[in-house]
This record gives sequence, C-alpha cells and structure tokens, in this order.
Amino acid sequence: MGDIRSIGIIAKATSPHADETMHRLVPWLTERGIQVRVQEDFSMLSGDQVTVVPREMVPEQTDIVIVLGGDGTLLSVARLVEKTEQPILGINLGSLGFLTELGIGEMYGSLEEVLSGNFRIEERMRLEANLVREGREIGHYQVLNDVVINKGALARIIDLEAFIDGQRVTNYKADGLIVSTPTGSTAYSLAAGGPIIEPTLDLIVIAPICPHTLTNRPLVVPGDSRVELHLASDSGKVYLTLDGQEGTQLNKDDRVHIFASPKKVKLIRTGAKSFFEVLSTKLYWGQR
Amino acid sequence: MGDIRSIGIIAKATSPHADETMHRLVPWLTERGIQVRVQEDFSMLSGDQVTVVPREMVPEQTDIVIVLGGDGTLLSVARLVEKTEQPILGINLGSLGFLTELGIGEMYGSLEEVLSGNFRIEERMRLEANLVREGREIGHYQVLNDVVINKGALARIIDLEAFIDGQRVTNYKADGLIVSTPTGSTAYSLAAGGPIIEPTLDLIVIAPICPHTLTNRPLVVPGDSRVELHLASDSGKVYLTLDGQEGTQLNKDDRVHIFASPKKVKLIRTGAKSFFEVLSTKLYWGQR
Amino acid sequence: MGDIRSIGIIAKATSPHADETMHRLVPWLTERGIQVRVQEDFSMLSGDQVTVVPREMVPEQTDIVIVLGGDGTLLSVARLVEKTEQPILGINLGSLGFLTELGIGEMYGSLEEVLSGNFRIEERMRLEANLVREGREIGHYQVLNDVVINKGALARIIDLEAFIDGQRVTNYKADGLIVSTPTGSTAYSLAAGGPIIEPTLDLIVIAPICPHTLTNRPLVVPGDSRVELHLASDSGKVYLTLDGQEGTQLNKDDRVHIFASPKKVKLIRTGAKSFFEVLSTKLYWGQR
Amino acid sequence: MGDIRSIGIIAKATSPHADETMHRLVPWLTERGIQVRVQEDFSMLSGDQVTVVPREMVPEQTDIVIVLGGDGTLLSVARLVEKTEQPILGINLGSLGFLTELGIGEMYGSLEEVLSGNFRIEERMRLEANLVREGREIGHYQVLNDVVINKGALARIIDLEAFIDGQRVTNYKADGLIVSTPTGSTAYSLAAGGPIIEPTLDLIVIAPICPHTLTNRPLVVPGDSRVELHLASDSGKVYLTLDGQEGTQLNKDDRVHIFASPKKVKLIRTGAKSFFEVLSTKLYWGQR
Repeated sequence: MGDIRSIGIIAKATSPHADETMHRLVPWLTERGIQVRVQEDFSMLSGDQVTVVPREMVPEQTDIVIVLGGDGTLLSVARLVEKTEQPILGINLGSLGFLTELGIGEMYGSLEEVLSGNFRIEERMRLEANLVREGREIGHYQVLNDVVINKGALARIIDLEAFIDGQRVTNYKADGLIVSTPTGSTAYSLAAGGPIIEPTLDLIVIAPICPHTLTNRPLVVPGDSRVELHLASDSGKVYLTLDGQEGTQLNKDDRVHIFASPKKVKLIRTGAKSFFEVLSTKLYWGQR
Repeated sequence: MGDIRSIGIIAKATSPHADETMHRLVPWLTERGIQVRVQEDFSMLSGDQVTVVPREMVPEQTDIVIVLGGDGTLLSVARLVEKTEQPILGINLGSLGFLTELGIGEMYGSLEEVLSGNFRIEERMRLEANLVREGREIGHYQVLNDVVINKGALARIIDLEAFIDGQRVTNYKADGLIVSTPTGSTAYSLAAGGPIIEPTLDLIVIAPICPHTLTNRPLVVPGDSRVELHLASDSGKVYLTLDGQEGTQLNKDDRVHIFASPKKVKLIRTGAKSFFEVLSTKLYWGQR
Repeated sequence: MGDIRSIGIIAKATSPHADETMHRLVPWLTERGIQVRVQEDFSMLSGDQVTVVPREMVPEQTDIVIVLGGDGTLLSVARLVEKTEQPILGINLGSLGFLTELGIGEMYGSLEEVLSGNFRIEERMRLEANLVREGREIGHYQVLNDVVINKGALARIIDLEAFIDGQRVTNYKADGLIVSTPTGSTAYSLAAGGPIIEPTLDLIVIAPICPHTLTNRPLVVPGDSRVELHLASDSGKVYLTLDGQEGTQLNKDDRVHIFASPKKVKLIRTGAKSFFEVLSTKLYWGQR
Repeated sequence: MGDIRSIGIIAKATSPHADETMHRLVPWLTERGIQVRVQEDFSMLSGDQVTVVPREMVPEQTDIVIVLGGDGTLLSVARLVEKTEQPILGINLGSLGFLTELGIGEMYGSLEEVLSGNFRIEERMRLEANLVREGREIGHYQVLNDVVINKGALARIIDLEAFIDGQRVTNYKADGLIVSTPTGSTAYSLAAGGPIIEPTLDLIVIAPICPHTLTNRPLVVPGDSRVELHLASDSGKVYLTLDGQEGTQLNKDDRVHIFASPKKVKLIRTGAKSFFEVLSTKLYWGQR
C-alpha cells in the first residue's frame, strides 16, 4: 500500500477517554501532514486539515481508519468500510479487546510505525446472510463476528433445521444458534462453548446455544460452505441478530442463508503481539 | 393417605392422544367408583360421577390429580395445587419426560396400584421468587423447575449481581441466569451446563447462561439459601421467567429474591423405576 | 473448645518460605506460652517449649494443627488427624488455595484471633473408600477431596459400572471417574466439568473424566449415598487414587465402595472471607 | 484409479463375526476374479487366488485394502499403508464407527460399487510427531487421529509448554493434551470437550484434558502449523500415545514436534451417506 495521506477516525463518543484522546491525536496527525476526517461529535476539532462529516462518511476518501473504542465499535466500523475496504487500526479506550488489542499507551508508537509503512495487513473473513421469507429475499447483511438466531426471553425452545451445502445436519432444539467466523470464535461463540479458532483461517463455526440435545457440540466447517437455517417451529418471538448489533424478527419457515463474503476486513498490525498473547491476557492463561 | 375417592384429570387438550385417552380413562375410573373432575375441553364426558369445571378448578376437592401430557403440563398443574397440595400422577402422552415418566401403556397398571394404595409420595422442593422494584414487592411467584432471568434476543449482555444469604457471589455478565431446584436440574439448567441433581435433595443450583467469564461455573448451594439477584445493567429488554411458562419484564435495579417454598410438590410413584433409569433413557446412557 | 495450649505445626519443608516462616512463627507462639510440636525438618528449633517429632506424630496431644503449605499439604494433614480430629488452620506459603485461604501476611493477625478464641470451626465431609477384591476388603482409605478411578496413560478406555444405594446408574465408558466431596468440587472435579458445591454441604459428586457418552454429565447425590464402582473391563492398568496422593492398581472386577465418613475435617476460620470471595479470587471472577 | 485386481483384507481376528464374514467374503471376491491377500489368522482360506501373509504384509501389491473391524482396526491399518497409500474400505463388524461407517449388511452392495468403479476417494490428513530428547530425535510417529501427551494415573498434574510456529501459546497445567486431526476430532478430542471438525479439512485441534485453567479451551489452528510441546514438569510418569495404540514414556524437557504429514489416508466412499448422517447416528442427534 502507498503512503498514508488521509486518515478517518471513528471514536466511541460516549467513552470517558474519547474526548481527551481525540484532542491529542488529531493535532498529532495533522502536524505530520495527514488529512483527517472525524465524526460530528468532534466538530470542535474542525480545521484546515480536519474535515467533520457524519459518522458513516468518515471512511470516505481516507487511506485507513482508526477506531477508538472497544470491539463493538470496530465491528460497526467494519460494516462502514465493506465496499471501500480501508484497513482499520483498532485502539482500545478501555480494557483490551480481541479486535482492539492496542491500548492508548501504545497508540502513538504504533502510529509512528504505520506512517513509516512498518505494518502488515491481517485479512479477516466476513460472513454474508440472506433472509428469505416465502421465497423472497427480504434482508441482506454482512458481519465480521457472527450471525445469530436467538429466541426471545419468553419464547419456547426453537427448532432450527440446519443444512450445509444442501446436506441436512440436524434439527437443533435450542435457545438459538451462532454461525461465526474465526474472528467471532472468541466472542459469543466462546461463551456458548465453541472452540477458539486462529482468526485468519477460512472457516465457519456453528455453535448451538443451550441445546437440549447435549451431544449437539460445536461444528467447524469449511469457509466456503453454504449454511442454510430453516426456522421450523412457531415458538414465539425469534430474532436474527448480526454482530450482536442489528436485529430483525423471524417468522416460522423463514430461511437464512449464510456464506463467506468476498470482501475481507483488513486489520492493521504493528509489532509482534501474537494472537496467543492476546488470548493469554484476555482469558487469564498462565494464571489459574 | 386415606382411600382415593375423587380424582381430577388435567390433560393437554392439544395432544393428539388426549381425546382418546380421556374417553377410555374416565369410564375406567367411574366403573371403580371414583368421582372424577375434568376440564371444560372434555365436557362431552360429563355424567353422574363426572363433573366438568374450568381447568384451574379441576384439583378442588379431589384426592389426587392425574396429569395427561408432558413435563410442561405437569409444571402448570403443580402451580394449581400449590395450596391444596394434592399428589400428582403424571402420565406422558408423548415421549417420556423427567416428571411424567409413565407412558399410556403403563397407566392402567399404575392406576390399579394407586387405587390399591400401593404407591409412595415423592416430595419435590419448590422455589418462590419475589420481584422487588424500588423497594416494593411487585410480583410473587413459585416454581417447580426454575426461576430464570434472561436477556431479550436484541438486548446486550446483562450484568446480574448475585448474593447468597447476603454475601456477594459475583456480577454475572451473561445472557442470563438460571436458579433451579433439583427437579429443574434436568431441564433448562442441564442445557446450560449444570449438573444433574438427585431430585429429592434440598438444594439450589445457580447456572449462568453463556457467561462471558468462562470460569463462572454452575454453583450448588444449600436449599435454605436466600438468593438475591440484582439487575445491575440497563441493557435492553430483560425478563424474569418462571418454569419457562410465565414471564415479566425487568427494569434496571430490579431485585429478585429466591428461596425455598414451604410447600412441596408431591409426585405419586408406583413401581420401581429409579431416577437413574429415567436418566439413562432420556440421555441415551449405556449407548454411545 | 477450651483454651489452646499446644499447637502442632506441619510445613511443606520443600517450600522456599517454610524455613523463614518457621523461624519466626515458633518463637511467636512460645512467647505466648504455647507448647509447640514440629516435624524433624525443623529440629534446629527444638527447645523448652518445642518438641521435635516425626511428621505423622506432630498432631498428637496438640489442641490444633497449623499447616504451612498448599492445599496438598493440608490434604495430607487431614489424614493424620482423622482419629484425633484436631482443628486445622491452613496458611498458604505460595498462591492461595481453596483450603489454605490465608496468606503469610494474614497469619499473625489470624493467630491472634485464634488464641483469643475468636474463630469458628467449619466442618467438612470426608469420604471413605473400601477396595474389595474377590469378595475380600483389601484396602480402606479416607479422603477430604476425592476418590478417583483413572486409567493409565497407555490403557484403553475403561468401563466402570456405577451403583448408588444398590441402584445401577450406568456403565461409564471414560478415562476415569471422580467421586468427590463438596470440598473436592473445586479441585479435580472442577477440571473435569463438575459443578462448584458450597463446601459445608453433605453431598457426593460423581464426575466422569472424558466420558465417551457425551450426555454423562456430573451427578450430585445425597451425602449418605453408598456409591459402588465395579471395574467391568480389563483394559490395561487402572488405578484407584485418593486425594491425588496415594494410589493402588485395580484388577478387573474389583469393586470400590464409597460413603461418607463419620469423621469430619475441622477447619479453623477467622475473619469474614466468604467462600465466594475465595472462588472469585481463584477463578478470576469479576474479571473477564 | 484403474481396475481393481487385488484386494488385501485385514480383519479384527478377535471379533466374533470375523470368521464367518471372511469365509463368505473371500470366495465372493475370488469368484469375481480378484486376487486376495489375508492375514495368517485366516490361513484356512488359502487357495489359488488367496495368499496368506503376515498381517503387516497384507497391503503389499494390492490395489485396495478392506478393513473388517472397528475404528481401532482401521487406525492400525492406516499405519500399514503409510507409504504405499492404498485406499481403505472400512466395514464395521460391530456398531458403526466414524471411520468404519458401513455395516456388514451394506458390504456386498458397497463392494459391487467399488468393483464397478463407482466410488470416490476421501483424503484425510495425517499428523507426524517427532520426539526429541536432549536435542536428538529418538522417535518418529504418524497418526490419523491424534497425538496425546497424558499423565499416568498416579502422576501429578503436568505442565506442558506449547508453541505454534515458534510462538508460545501457554503452559497447560492439565492431565494432558490432545493434538488431533479433523478425523480425530470425533474421537478422544470430543470426549475432552473439543469441537467436531468436518473431516476433510486441513486443520489441527489442540484440546487440553482436564485443564486446571478453566479458560484453556480447545484451539483450532491451520493444518500447516508446527506444534511444539515441551514437558516442563517432572511430575511422575508421563506418556506420549499415538492414535491411542502405541505409547512411549516421556522425560522432563522432552519435546514433541507435531505437523501435517505429506501422506494422506485415502478412504473409499460409496453411496451418499454424509458426514452429518454419521454424526446424527453416532451422537443420537434428532433424538433428545
């Protein structure tokens, strides 16, 4: 990738550290000749080299996007750069995340590296999901972590018939089902008993949530599989949720098709922190 | 207990076998001199010894109650006999349950035993739950299986602070929490990773649903413990559900107090089928 | 319990902190008029009020026993006081344990309390195990944590037929089986997927190790149950281990009978640290 | 592949059905003009087209090998064809396996298909393991299912330092560690809590056995990873086992290097039974 001349910054405006960090980071970048785009929450920073735009337009015409926030913020930014595919540098304003594994203390050092070209791009698989009702596609979504079908709190157990590449897997009787990327394997899927997948792999994890059939263990299938889920029961409110952030209600006999997106998420990596170091920190490995 | 002269029958009217079973069972009982009470769905059976009443009045003035249906039907009947404490004989119209462990084929043999007095009463612990909002009790419930706090499908992870006998346990960050009796240990709690508890014990199981802290394993505490749950987060819709059948929405800072009920559920047992035989059948033990 | 006049101290002599701690602790006690008994590793401390004896004789004629070491040390001391039933005060020389929940920093404060009578005794259930070969009892053991039947590393999967109070549970096909007290529920049983049991309860946990039948989940039965295990397979070397410390090889058709001991282990508790606080610390609750 | 003219048959001679099956299968094949090689247990079948040789020489100069037995028999035959790479047709003499998914009833129909060329070859990844002591390789092994490091029953918990491609993962404190292929994911790894992996994938699963760190969840890494395990503790007898069949004792500081073998195992598949159908049958999916 060529020289970095323009950077978009999207911050979790409600974070207590966002404001202070932005007030220091933006001048730091402009002093280095970078054009900066920020969201409207930071209009006070407007200036010669700093353009203020609506949040969803921040990535436009930028070379990379800095995310200041947690993993949730980064997930939402991943959606914004779906078409333009800018690399993302995640900086965590709070406790470190799996996606935002750099803290504020490491930010400037890391940016020096990035501006000098000393970084690599780590590509992460995305999933797309089509929601089909009565034969018509009524929704299309893409995620970096997971596509989840989940019963409402008052609904009865749901019956989800699953197919992979047209072959029937089983009817899951469960609270729900998580279809996850390797990136998502350390998020909701892990809490549901799924394995930890090296995040650059090209795989799909299918993990049931509280299955009544205790032998319905998490399943790992090739990244180019087409997963089809059919809501076979009418058991009250059931929802499709995307990266834990967007959702829509499902009807009986709705079908959800899930498959790898051709578009990857590009994460900027500097330094030598390995995936296993992040795991060890987040999961208290090496301690009891 | 004395001679059985009157029996209430509550059937799952929507079961395909309910009608036929009722048409044979009711005459079988009246021929043996038993007074029978049935719910309005079976008004065609009305007669000299057969009184038709609303479902919730079936147990009144009867010596025992026969439940025809699944475990869900029995759970709902358990609530009806809370005060009058009639023993319940569960007959499963479909595949066997943990509570309704007799099939239709075993019903008449079992009833012969019951009418001859050859049976024992197995007492099962119930839980009571008080819902407290802004210092005032706004709901009171009792269950045979479990009290569950569960997030809605679109809600974020919830933060539930738990206390036992006034001592803080932890703040669970999870999809929800199941507080279960031993009877409930083979229901939802099992699907969430809880242990199997011998059902006549006097214990409370606390099992988190998809906890983010992976070390938050199910906890077994004395039956006379007072469990207090405090909804510490404002993360969207969160519900309190009782035996998976009734529910109510919770607000931030609502508190739920859970403790053993002085009233037991009395199940009628005939024959020698042990709890472990039921487990083996339901969980395919002895097979792979 | 009356005044404390004599104290036995058993230390894990190989711990790097044992020596220094003993050199300060023993004079601290004798200055307060206490008669002290120590094991031969600390014969240099011999004196007027300090008697040096073999390790297993340290508890004799003492009012309480102080254990300096980890949970393993305390388990071994629990066996020494089986008959004499002295209360035990556990001090951890390293990272805190479940049984030795006080650190060196808390030791003197805690001992002040103990000498002033400001403490309570927490009774913990023990298990006894009889090993029966060809109808004859050839071994008798007692444990505070667990009785384990485990296959050797090169043995094939074992087949263990389990009975509770004479009722057959199932044939476990597994690497082994853990029969644990509530105290042991936070030790090996937890690693095998067992629940956490409030430690003063009177219960037995039966947790299979890597069962091939995935639905063979941990089972909690009453403390007065008689568990009988029958080694039904001839699959190579299989061992009975007691508290992870002693072991003996089993033959095909050996039977192990396990039941609660009438003798409890008495732990001395000072201060207000609850079981849940210990759990939170040991299991990183309240963190991710 | 060309016409099949010669077939080796390796049977589990101790199976009660082996003899009868061999007496019918061998003539069935010779009638169809096939040269057959059998192991010495079946020397009574010797004849014009039937050569009797030691078990390990059965595969020599044959086009395919039929395995009559269970998954264990097939694992041992997989080692015999490591270099010659004949495809294997697995027929189960008892209850169906994951690798031997055809029963005797399906054998002749399946063989008709195979002799007509109506079959496909499914390639399964193998792993190689090098055992290195004091810098010298002292053992070299290959497996179809798994490489396991396991403590002896009387040993203390072991400390295994794991590296992937030179990056440290963690020090596992556990009973042992399973390094499995996708094929092995439904064997021992599943019993230890590992995920189910679609068996033709090129991946390595690392699943700890009863880890003391409860967050040490199974890990899935790329098939071309180099896994290095270092036995960091001196905790009694520790063993390296290969496909659960061969084993060797390890010393402190031994290192085991594990990586994909260039040689695949070729399984003959006829008919349309999918992996998910095998799973459903073996794991009682679709039932409770």
